[in-house]
Amino acid sequence: MNQRLPPPESKRVVRDLRDLAALTSTPEGAQRVAWGPVWRKAREWFAQKVRTDLGLTAQRDPAGNVWTTLPGLSNRSVLIGSHLDSVPNGGWLDGCLGVVAGLEVLRRHAAAGTPPVTLHLVDWADEEGARFGRSLCGSAAATGALAPKRELAHLVDRHGVRLPDALAENGVELGSMLDARAFLKSQDGRAYLELHIEQGPVLESMKRPTGVVLGTVGVERHTLRFEGQASHSGATPIPLRRDAFLAAAEFALACRDIGLRYSGDTPRTRVVATCGVVKVEPGIVTAVPGVCEISLDLRALDAKVLARMLSAARRASEDAAKRNGARVSWSRLLGIEPRLFDRRLLDLCARAVREMSGDAPELPSGPLHDASELAAVMPTVMVFAQSSPGISHCKEEDTKVAHLDKSIRAFLRLAELTVDEVASLPATRRRAFRSGAASVEA
Amino acid sequence: MNQRLPPPESKRVVRDLRDLAALTSTPEGAQRVAWGPVWRKAREWFAQKVRTDLGLTAQRDPAGNVWTTLPGLSNRSVLIGSHLDSVPNGGWLDGCLGVVAGLEVLRRHAAAGTPPVTLHLVDWADEEGARFGRSLCGSAAATGALAPKRELAHLVDRHGVRLPDALAENGVELGSMLDARAFLKSQDGRAYLELHIEQGPVLESMKRPTGVVLGTVGVERHTLRFEGQASHSGATPIPLRRDAFLAAAEFALACRDIGLRYSGDTPRTRVVATCGVVKVEPGIVTAVPGVCEISLDLRALDAKVLARMLSAARRASEDAAKRNGARVSWSRLLGIEPRLFDRRLLDLCARAVREMSGDAPELPSGPLHDASELAAVMPTVMVFAQSSPGISHCKEEDTKVAHLDKSIRAFLRLAELTVDEVASLPATRRRAFRSGAASVEA
Repeated sequence: MNQRLPPPESKRVVRDLRDLAALTSTPEGAQRVAWGPVWRKAREWFAQKVRTDLGLTAQRDPAGNVWTTLPGLSNRSVLIGSHLDSVPNGGWLDGCLGVVAGLEVLRRHAAAGTPPVTLHLVDWADEEGARFGRSLCGSAAATGALAPKRELAHLVDRHGVRLPDALAENGVELGSMLDARAFLKSQDGRAYLELHIEQGPVLESMKRPTGVVLGTVGVERHTLRFEGQASHSGATPIPLRRDAFLAAAEFALACRDIGLRYSGDTPRTRVVATCGVVKVEPGIVTAVPGVCEISLDLRALDAKVLARMLSAARRASEDAAKRNGARVSWSRLLGIEPRLFDRRLLDLCARAVREMSGDAPELPSGPLHDASELAAVMPTVMVFAQSSPGISHCKEEDTKVAHLDKSIRAFLRLAELTVDEVASLPATRRRAFRSGAASVEA
Repeated sequence: MNQRLPPPESKRVVRDLRDLAALTSTPEGAQRVAWGPVWRKAREWFAQKVRTDLGLTAQRDPAGNVWTTLPGLSNRSVLIGSHLDSVPNGGWLDGCLGVVAGLEVLRRHAAAGTPPVTLHLVDWADEEGARFGRSLCGSAAATGALAPKRELAHLVDRHGVRLPDALAENGVELGSMLDARAFLKSQDGRAYLELHIEQGPVLESMKRPTGVVLGTVGVERHTLRFEGQASHSGATPIPLRRDAFLAAAEFALACRDIGLRYSGDTPRTRVVATCGVVKVEPGIVTAVPGVCEISLDLRALDAKVLARMLSAARRASEDAAKRNGARVSWSRLLGIEPRLFDRRLLDLCARAVREMSGDAPELPSGPLHDASELAAVMPTVMVFAQSSPGISHCKEEDTKVAHLDKSIRAFLRLAELTVDEVASLPATRRRAFRSGAASVEA
């Protein structure tokens, strides 16, 4: 029996976000760095809201994720999540938008009686990895993608504090973090929903307040080392040089061309290539660079396209090295597979977004999110709110209130549709949504 | 009355150079850093040679330059100079080749009786500037191009030693260094000659053992700052980026094209453009660079060509900035005018080099030398010995003995021709050679 819910409203969500920002920001931005005192203050504020508004008590899993559960007529559940933690000097919406909107989902469904399925709101711990460098910490622990001993045990922050000690200070034991996996499994989750600020300029450039996220892109991240021969800038004629920097410059420009060449016309088929780190040796004004290290970050939603881009970049690096009398070597920093969201949930999401904004633009997420981890274990989808300006991880991060309103309402509507959908699943089909991920072939 | 001299020989010079290298090098190379103990040891060794071989006592001017004077029938003099100091882990020939060959000039002329004019051999102090950063220190003091209080008083080495204290340790007072100017003037110098290793690959690429140096090139040295907008590598489509590094990469490649376009076919008309320092911000793998600082070093023997290259580079920087949605600003680090050597001495030099090697290839010097300073106050010329390999300021620096032989003999012959030329000047024409610098219009 579906609930009858009033039209979704965003006002309480925006007010709560403003309260949280006032409580946990300085003039430099949000300071809710995971495992620290301001983050704990944010979580206490949130637990108080849960108690006051819902009469519920939040629960922590062994990885430090905080679960708020609104029991339904069935144990089958819909999960809603995001993160209260921020980078230092971060924006007021990154992460907490999704958690606070999730609170509104629970308030809305609670006000209408008992929902047909159970609703879980999860505040994932340490999504940002801002202090110790490992992002998606809590959600990766819950989905089993994290190897705490190998990945976390050795991490130290810039003040010399060890991650295991910071965890212990927050009641989390490194050795039992993976018990969060059993905790997640026991919730019988059938769908995961997340609302997040885009953190990029795509929706703004499309003049759309909110959009449907197709998945998180795959990443190939490498460091290249071009080696030529350092020589005196005054004494070495250009044709006799082996300039490692010019080889890297040619490579970087070729990578931009690769990014443009492999991009389709839509956000779904758009790919990117970025050289963000550049170091030259000896790095003096009077020396032709003998060595240049440069990073490459390739992203695409389609794994095959990503592989083709990587091959093209390898060829470009070898061509650039050859033309400049240099050698090039590659070392891989990171490889992440594309995570495509669930086809059925994408349809529901498009419907909700269209109802609230008149259109349903689709785009992939360049950054990773907790949803990237959840997509590996259950049907998942995300809604993006427009960034304006299209930047994040800084105090200038923002979404206009009119756009925030539409995004939040679309998300509330998506939750409503998803609850009904999960409620209507036949009893035997435990993972009905796992029928297939969305295709990127447009 | 000209002296009758035997054919010039290089053997003693090469033997002395080997002795000096054995005395003042480690396995990592020469360690004769100015104002330090190994440099003082080199100078003591040299003073001992002067006493033993010539029966003369060297004299120090107020800037710490060491003068060895072989009196002639006239006070008119020919100056021969270079430097015994080296960079740390330097080559065995850079600098000391010219001083030791100069000693041979004096030995040769002394052995043949009293020369018609006076010969001065000068070991200039701190040509390299390796410890405190100000190169051509002693020669610039003697020619008046140095402003000790403004340029030297504040300098500190990496161990925290102040330059004035290092000078005092060597009997030099900062406040009276410029008295070296009066000392130089009182010597009635009519020509300055210097033999140096090329420190580049030009003679090697021409397969020539030795060459005539046309002058030292002019330098325009600048730092450029490209400012775009940092943004997330995953979230920002390529067409919406304002990538400061790609603007700088386009600029660097354009500067190479400028260097090739403004170069003529000969070493005389060859120009260079180098980007040796590259720094990006924020300099992280996942961020499109918002800022890129890049250095530009332009060199040409012709001041007009140098000015045209600079204009072309400015246009290229503005075009690159515009194409990438960035801005660019320039700040000048250094400007050095081309110093063209004396036309009459170039003729004598070409004659001497041709006599000893069968050819007289001409090339400019990209690096500066003490001769660059002397050229401002008296007729000057230099001889280069081939570098093989074409690198310097490292222990691999070398000249094959056969090439060293021809270079030294050419230099000894040049000194002989110059002594005769100065002796033949009419008494009234004090600065006969100042009639005009060489033209670079080939």
